[in-house]
Order: sequence, then structure tokens, then C-alpha cells
Amino acid sequence: MKINNEVIGLVAGILTASSMLPQLIKTLKKKEADDISPFMVIILIVGTGLWSYYGVLRDDLPIIITNAFSCLLNSIMLILKFRYSRNKLSI
Amino acid sequence: MKINNEVIGLVAGILTASSMLPQLIKTLKKKEADDISPFMVIILIVGTGLWSYYGVLRDDLPIIITNAFSCLLNSIMLILKFRYSRNKLSI
Repeated sequence: MKINNEVIGLVAGILTASSMLPQLIKTLKKKEADDISPFMVIILIVGTGLWSYYGVLRDDLPIIITNAFSCLLNSIMLILKFRYSRNKLSI
Repeated sequence: MKINNEVIGLVAGILTASSMLPQLIKTLKKKEADDISPFMVIILIVGTGLWSYYGVLRDDLPIIITNAFSCLLNSIMLILKFRYSRNKLSI
């Protein structure tokens, strides 16, 4: 039962950590990002950054790795958001 | 030190759980969602759903509440995505 719990947690972690990947691919292909909220992306950068720091404090490598990866994806997304938004004032 | 850790974890959890909120507000205001990847939203629904289930298995109320809230926001976002996408085939 314990192994099952850990597998569910691991799958859940991989899914939420990599969720920004299809968005990055779509934005790179379309070169359009007007409809994406920069606040969502900024909140995710700060949130996953804090989770990584929490992982460091708790000495928990899975938390550090998944959230640092997610933080990196979101940082790239923020750059793409401002690069590809036709209306620069669109927030 | 322990309290500081918990506060950081709590703030991180609140931020990542509520990150879809500004996106929902933006989509409702603009009524456009072409640039948003439905795969990102679907992966987040499955991922946060699994996190909630993991919270139930571990009897961890904060994990259940934050992820169930996030799963709800993402489910609403998926409905808006298909409602407001001008190009219905745009994935």
C-alpha cells in the first residue's frame, strides 16, 4: 500500500511539474501568447521557486528537482509571453 | 525554524494552487483562449486530481484542499478553453 501511495505521488508530481511543457511547445509553434495571463506564469515562478527552497530546507530532493524544473519551464514561458504577445500591454 | 519552513510551504502551496485564477479572470474578460494549450490544462486536472487522491491516502488535509481547489479551477479553465477558442481545432 505504501508503494502504491508513493507511485501516485510520483505520477502526480511528474504531471504537475511538466504541465507547462505542452504550453511552451504550442507557444513556440504558434508564436502567439496574447491569451496567456502573465500573472499566472509569474505566480507559478514564485510558487515553484518557494517550493524548491522548501525542498532545500526539508532536504527533500524530489521536491527540489520537480519544482526547479517547473520553475525553469515557467521562466522560459514568461520570456515567450512577452516576446510573442502582439499587444505588449495585454495582461 | 520549523515554523518558518511551514510558512514557506504554505505560501508556496497557496501560490501554486491559485495560479490559474488570474488566467481564468483574463479568459473570462477577453473571451479568447486560442493561445492556451488544452494539454496543459488537462495534465493539470489529472495531476492535481491525483495529488488530492494522494492527500486522501496520506490523510493530509492541506494537500487535499489546495489540490482539489486547483483541480476545480483547471476544470473551469478547460470549459472556457473550448467555449472561447475561435478555432475549435486549435490545440
